[in-house]
Amino acid sequence: MPYPETTDAFTVTSVDDWSNFTRQEVPLKKFEEDDIDIAVDACGVCASDVHKINGGWGRDIPLPLCVGHEIIGKAVKVGSKVKDIKVGDRVGVGAQIGADLTCNNCKADQENYCPNQLDTYGAKYADGTVTQGGYSSHVRAHQYFTFKIPDGLDTALAAPMLCAGLTTYSPLKRLGAGPGKKVAILGLGGLGHFGVLWSVAMGAETYVLSHSPSKEKDALALGAKQFISTKGDKWAEPWKFTFDLILNCADATDRFNLPDYFSTLKVNGAFHMVGFPDKPLPSIMAQAFAPNGCSLSASHIGNRPEMIEMLELAAKQNVKSWVETIDISEKGCKEAVTRVYNGDNVKFRFTLVNYDAIFGKRS
Amino acid sequence: MPYPETTDAFTVTSVDDWSNFTRQEVPLKKFEEDDIDIAVDACGVCASDVHKINGGWGRDIPLPLCVGHEIIGKAVKVGSKVKDIKVGDRVGVGAQIGADLTCNNCKADQENYCPNQLDTYGAKYADGTVTQGGYSSHVRAHQYFTFKIPDGLDTALAAPMLCAGLTTYSPLKRLGAGPGKKVAILGLGGLGHFGVLWSVAMGAETYVLSHSPSKEKDALALGAKQFISTKGDKWAEPWKFTFDLILNCADATDRFNLPDYFSTLKVNGAFHMVGFPDKPLPSIMAQAFAPNGCSLSASHIGNRPEMIEMLELAAKQNVKSWVETIDISEKGCKEAVTRVYNGDNVKFRFTLVNYDAIFGKRS
Repeated sequence: MPYPETTDAFTVTSVDDWSNFTRQEVPLKKFEEDDIDIAVDACGVCASDVHKINGGWGRDIPLPLCVGHEIIGKAVKVGSKVKDIKVGDRVGVGAQIGADLTCNNCKADQENYCPNQLDTYGAKYADGTVTQGGYSSHVRAHQYFTFKIPDGLDTALAAPMLCAGLTTYSPLKRLGAGPGKKVAILGLGGLGHFGVLWSVAMGAETYVLSHSPSKEKDALALGAKQFISTKGDKWAEPWKFTFDLILNCADATDRFNLPDYFSTLKVNGAFHMVGFPDKPLPSIMAQAFAPNGCSLSASHIGNRPEMIEMLELAAKQNVKSWVETIDISEKGCKEAVTRVYNGDNVKFRFTLVNYDAIFGKRS
Repeated sequence: MPYPETTDAFTVTSVDDWSNFTRQEVPLKKFEEDDIDIAVDACGVCASDVHKINGGWGRDIPLPLCVGHEIIGKAVKVGSKVKDIKVGDRVGVGAQIGADLTCNNCKADQENYCPNQLDTYGAKYADGTVTQGGYSSHVRAHQYFTFKIPDGLDTALAAPMLCAGLTTYSPLKRLGAGPGKKVAILGLGGLGHFGVLWSVAMGAETYVLSHSPSKEKDALALGAKQFISTKGDKWAEPWKFTFDLILNCADATDRFNLPDYFSTLKVNGAFHMVGFPDKPLPSIMAQAFAPNGCSLSASHIGNRPEMIEMLELAAKQNVKSWVETIDISEKGCKEAVTRVYNGDNVKFRFTLVNYDAIFGKRS
């Protein structure tokens, strides 16, 4: 087996043929004393994976590319400088695998905004090695971006927390979701379902806003207090000045009438986006913010302390993400990305599992 | 003299002839026990006055209309329920003269976001009386929207604080301007000059961003640490991740490349607008907020506690706004609004003064 120089990976080799995966060995970065090698056991399938491989976020991607950034596995090798992880630990890696860790942002626990951050797949280390994701046998990660998975969390359910979970947890935390607050989660998909789970777990009164009345049952099952259909011109009328924050998990914001959503916010409330459409936001007047002094914002994943806090909260409150598992293989990867692309009955995340059957027991 | 039923006012009688003022008596609301009658001594000239009378914010305005919402004068009559103001006090009225004072926003000291708020001019009381501003002999105001002017503040210099001052003070306060913070004031006009004065008075390290290099001298004289020209494509490069907040006082945001400005903000920094262009904001991608998790927001004047705090700060720190005075008259009003409209050497506010010469000593 060519590990430890390479990882045995399901790769995309062409943007135009993005749903067909080829199994091949791809190089890993040189092992350094802060690194941890992980034998992957599960990897969530993120909409980002699809945007990346089909060229939706730009056709200039390094090929072959192995995606996947919701990774859980077993530490099988640990560098001499690694502090908190030992061989045999169950660990996870999310969407970020590098940062300079020396800039002002990093020093302020804002490494997710480090100008030298590295994505878990498709980025380049200084030595030119391309980062490769978790649709593969092994991942090599810096200890700063490797997280112990608390006991009690199921691997397949915890995997999607590492990107989709953190992406929703971080802004909810920073914007003060908690007891006494009214939080609206806009759009009930992979991100939105985590938005509801976290907001409820944090103790906020949680609402779901959605264009699809068919989502009501799921919204309530996830713990939302109420489902609000955003169909029609007048949906916002009864909700003026209601929410402390709206977490916008939809990626269709380019088609929204933003002033309607803004009007449902309390004074100085926040409309915060974690779902990013491919098209620009609708043009609005500056005055649209004035009736309640609200704000429009967005964020990029979250930081290490938030990741640790989120996993602890999930373990403590037994938060269960809704996951459908798919066995990893060429066929499994194709099925997963195709169904995410088509929105084909995704409730609400896929996790690729059963890695031992393909890659063998690794140690 | 027909006061107390009316006020002797310089009014606009036609949107198409907005710079010509006609002196006439216009009705005041019925005096109630929360009301204070003010013999006006000075009134700042706000860009809002011009936007209102020339139809820039909509041609459907009640005529005849007397504008002016930066009013200082002497209390000459005080209702039985008025607590803190007595006859003879020097008092001020800003841009808001009414609210229901019973809704959740009002109860939370957010009366400037009350859905039933009344502007100081051009709004309608329940009895149909139109509110009339301070280009006139008298103003009748509810005690909640009437403020004692601290000793030591010059009347002509304090008048513009009541709208332009509060409009900039409130967001600086709410967004945390103070020691250890870096604040950029964008646009150095009537609002911007107050932005600099307050930011400096609050103890923040204050910068001025402007398209006009000719403003540098004034920026530094107002107390800014540094002037930054926003000319050219690369102006933002040296300023990445620098400012805790940008207070945008310019009304040309529709022509800005917002991502450049966003890039100069620290993580989770705020780009906050108090200058409102007549045109929509430029269309941007949601992703433009992601490199630092910043926000875009705006606000509407400020609340009563902030007004009181601001006036106290101005008195304590001897904050001096830059004001050119003009004697009130038909000619004086015309000169003031025309020069504001043309941006004709306004440094940085006009205050109409010398009311006694026109209206006599009132008591």
